[in-house]
Amino acid sequence: MEVTRTLARFIVGHRYADVPEKVRHEAARAFLNWVGCAVGASRHETVGRALAALSEFSGPREATVLGRGDKLDIMLAALMNGTTSHTFDYDDTHLKTVIHPSGPVASAILALAERKPLKGEDFLHAFILGVETECRIGNAVYPSHYDIGWHITATAGVFGAAAAAGRLLGLNEQQMVWALGIAATQSSGLREMFGSMAKPMHPGNAARNGLLAALLASKNFTSAEQGIEGRRGFANVLATERNTAAITERLGQTWEIALNTYKPYACGIVEHPAIDGCIQLRNEHKLKAEDIESIALRVHPLVLELTGRRTPQTGLEGKFSVYHSCAVAIIHGAAGEAQYSDDAVRDPRVVALRDRVTAAVEQGVHEDQVHVAIQLKSGKVLERFVEHAAGSLDRPMSDSDLEAKFRGLADGILSTTEADRLIRLCWDVGRLKDVGEVARASVPAAVMKRDEVRRDKEKRDSNSKGNQC
Amino acid sequence: MEVTRTLARFIVGHRYADVPEKVRHEAARAFLNWVGCAVGASRHETVGRALAALSEFSGPREATVLGRGDKLDIMLAALMNGTTSHTFDYDDTHLKTVIHPSGPVASAILALAERKPLKGEDFLHAFILGVETECRIGNAVYPSHYDIGWHITATAGVFGAAAAAGRLLGLNEQQMVWALGIAATQSSGLREMFGSMAKPMHPGNAARNGLLAALLASKNFTSAEQGIEGRRGFANVLATERNTAAITERLGQTWEIALNTYKPYACGIVEHPAIDGCIQLRNEHKLKAEDIESIALRVHPLVLELTGRRTPQTGLEGKFSVYHSCAVAIIHGAAGEAQYSDDAVRDPRVVALRDRVTAAVEQGVHEDQVHVAIQLKSGKVLERFVEHAAGSLDRPMSDSDLEAKFRGLADGILSTTEADRLIRLCWDVGRLKDVGEVARASVPAAVMKRDEVRRDKEKRDSNSKGNQC
Repeated sequence: MEVTRTLARFIVGHRYADVPEKVRHEAARAFLNWVGCAVGASRHETVGRALAALSEFSGPREATVLGRGDKLDIMLAALMNGTTSHTFDYDDTHLKTVIHPSGPVASAILALAERKPLKGEDFLHAFILGVETECRIGNAVYPSHYDIGWHITATAGVFGAAAAAGRLLGLNEQQMVWALGIAATQSSGLREMFGSMAKPMHPGNAARNGLLAALLASKNFTSAEQGIEGRRGFANVLATERNTAAITERLGQTWEIALNTYKPYACGIVEHPAIDGCIQLRNEHKLKAEDIESIALRVHPLVLELTGRRTPQTGLEGKFSVYHSCAVAIIHGAAGEAQYSDDAVRDPRVVALRDRVTAAVEQGVHEDQVHVAIQLKSGKVLERFVEHAAGSLDRPMSDSDLEAKFRGLADGILSTTEADRLIRLCWDVGRLKDVGEVARASVPAAVMKRDEVRRDKEKRDSNSKGNQC
Repeated sequence: MEVTRTLARFIVGHRYADVPEKVRHEAARAFLNWVGCAVGASRHETVGRALAALSEFSGPREATVLGRGDKLDIMLAALMNGTTSHTFDYDDTHLKTVIHPSGPVASAILALAERKPLKGEDFLHAFILGVETECRIGNAVYPSHYDIGWHITATAGVFGAAAAAGRLLGLNEQQMVWALGIAATQSSGLREMFGSMAKPMHPGNAARNGLLAALLASKNFTSAEQGIEGRRGFANVLATERNTAAITERLGQTWEIALNTYKPYACGIVEHPAIDGCIQLRNEHKLKAEDIESIALRVHPLVLELTGRRTPQTGLEGKFSVYHSCAVAIIHGAAGEAQYSDDAVRDPRVVALRDRVTAAVEQGVHEDQVHVAIQLKSGKVLERFVEHAAGSLDRPMSDSDLEAKFRGLADGILSTTEADRLIRLCWDVGRLKDVGEVARASVPAAVMKRDEVRRDKEKRDSNSKGNQC
């Protein structure tokens, strides 16, 4: 029943050759989606405020804030990339636990990859092992842990970050036990924060603290031996029911990352079937807003409970309005971050169509289902029953869907050429000679240029100061 | 019932003039004791390993690791001083909650004081408000929170650090609400870690994370509005029973720091009555080990449960042996950190006397009581009933006791002159023009000298490198 030690032994001893190709590909998909989310939110004010507060305390500026010119020490970079990648709430989801698995893990180890060149296969392997660690720990405590009020992406994520970073730092079994213990004792993050900037910071904190745990353990800083399963360890203290045996059962035989999903739409998952149905009918019938008399949805009760806002005023409120979401689905054929800007929500064409959408709860319609009926001005009615929403495990986003999502996120930040190059690097991540290239390629040339000019100026200034001395 | 906001308003609006003189003096006592503990443990391997792992990631080296030459950025310095001050488990105790209050708060704000000169009264005021914050939050969730397995010094300490640092950063009420919220969502630290290096790191983490919370809030990084009392906030998620009203009742009228206590002996508090009794008889009768036939203790059951180790082999094990503790109390007249070294535990004189100590549980003897009977070789029996152990609220350490404790801790690190100067600065902390002086004065001249030489060398090396370019 030595959960922490058995898990540690697995993390340090597993061989990449034993990771199935399908799992490796899923990891690349998750990584691509993560980079896109981080680049996409890199201009958000959440990031601006955090950088304003913390940048001046940075140590050696070895790691990149994705999508920006800023460089920070590896722990602060892990914090920032974990934060940006969750800012739009558009990152990946391990549906069994509602963990967003990539943020904590990828943020920690991409920072390491910029410190010292890292081979793609080592990186991808560590990423897969980190996701395995956090999701299995999540499985052991879900749902009681989440129901109490813990934001499981943060609380479990810190273990994933520690495991992946520790693997790359070459920890031995005992050191990995300590890294997991130091992670356990930093596990934190409250659901109360939902709706504030502190929420996206959670995976950032998990990344930073997990990295800290691995660094400390690498110098033999000790922790308890049973940080996860001990009497006063993580599983007993942070959950009212737990099954810690699930953490080690069939380790290396099943892979949690294979259960990962990606959001096609930049809003709460309960609205996704309705958006999906509208986009399907729009594309098949080349619908325009002006052709439409009304749209009637028959939905699962949670849709109205969580996203029933009739007259949203801001982009953020738009995310909680299934009416707005259906309107942009028809008008733009998409519901990406761009469709949830303040401007998009106030666009008169969108408002006019939104007001013609109705929704009613219907018994028997499941959470990832919807019935859509579009009444045309011509008198014709188009109907669609969506059995599984796009992005669910039953109808996963294709690789090209993920690329399109990435391009939408990078739009306005990277040029088309830059986005294409970054997408290629993400697909190739497992074969790169130096994974740090991904981080460097995420910075638009325009920003690099601006930073070069600034650095040159700083150099000149400091030289001229030097001359005065 | 707006707990977080009411508390925030108090922290930002309170006036130093309204702090009673007695409370200010208690704060100086706590500060002196904290500095002594931090200096005393500054050479411990816990610190060495943490520095080996983290120093290279430091940002601007503005703050001092007390007692050492090392300088680190303010967040890492807060982490390290919080850690050293708890390494010997010799720091202060708020007995109502078993919080060690000074570590998280003082570590965070002394680092700030080295960044920008801070007046003593502002510093001491912030310290008092930070301790008030963490102890009141502790009162609200103790004991259920501690019983679940949370290390309350860490989990409550992060609020204290955020409050004190936020006060010094000049946060407004709304920003203080956010700082407390960001603190809440980082609240962590498991009792499972007791006995490992991760335990003393807890107040360090609390200091670092509280400081981070205040810095973020100062740039309007937002959190939930009810981080403490919200449905999924700290008190509901981390405790099974709570009384959040206690956090704001009679704020500014009662002071938790007035309930602070200090350990006279460097071991678990349950052994303190026995040590106290032995030292009293030793001093009154000028006892020597060779005069003694045997020592018989009648004790509270917890003494044997927690400190019943008959044959300790290491210094750390010695702390869990009431037999060893009584032996050093007779031989050295003290039970400071020096009496719990490996050498002290293996000293044949100590071992010989230790083997002549017996202890039996007696009904009706309270936790801070003991009955000691010393049988002399002369046939005479000396007896002493200790009603309240030294260091308890009923028999607090005097100011000169605290100074003697400080000197014992600083012995071997600071010269007598240096220790005297530092003690004076601590007593004067509320009147200093620049509190950073305390941190600077904690570094022994020998270390400063060594560091100067190193810095000179580094300068020469980097100059000669510069010439080669």
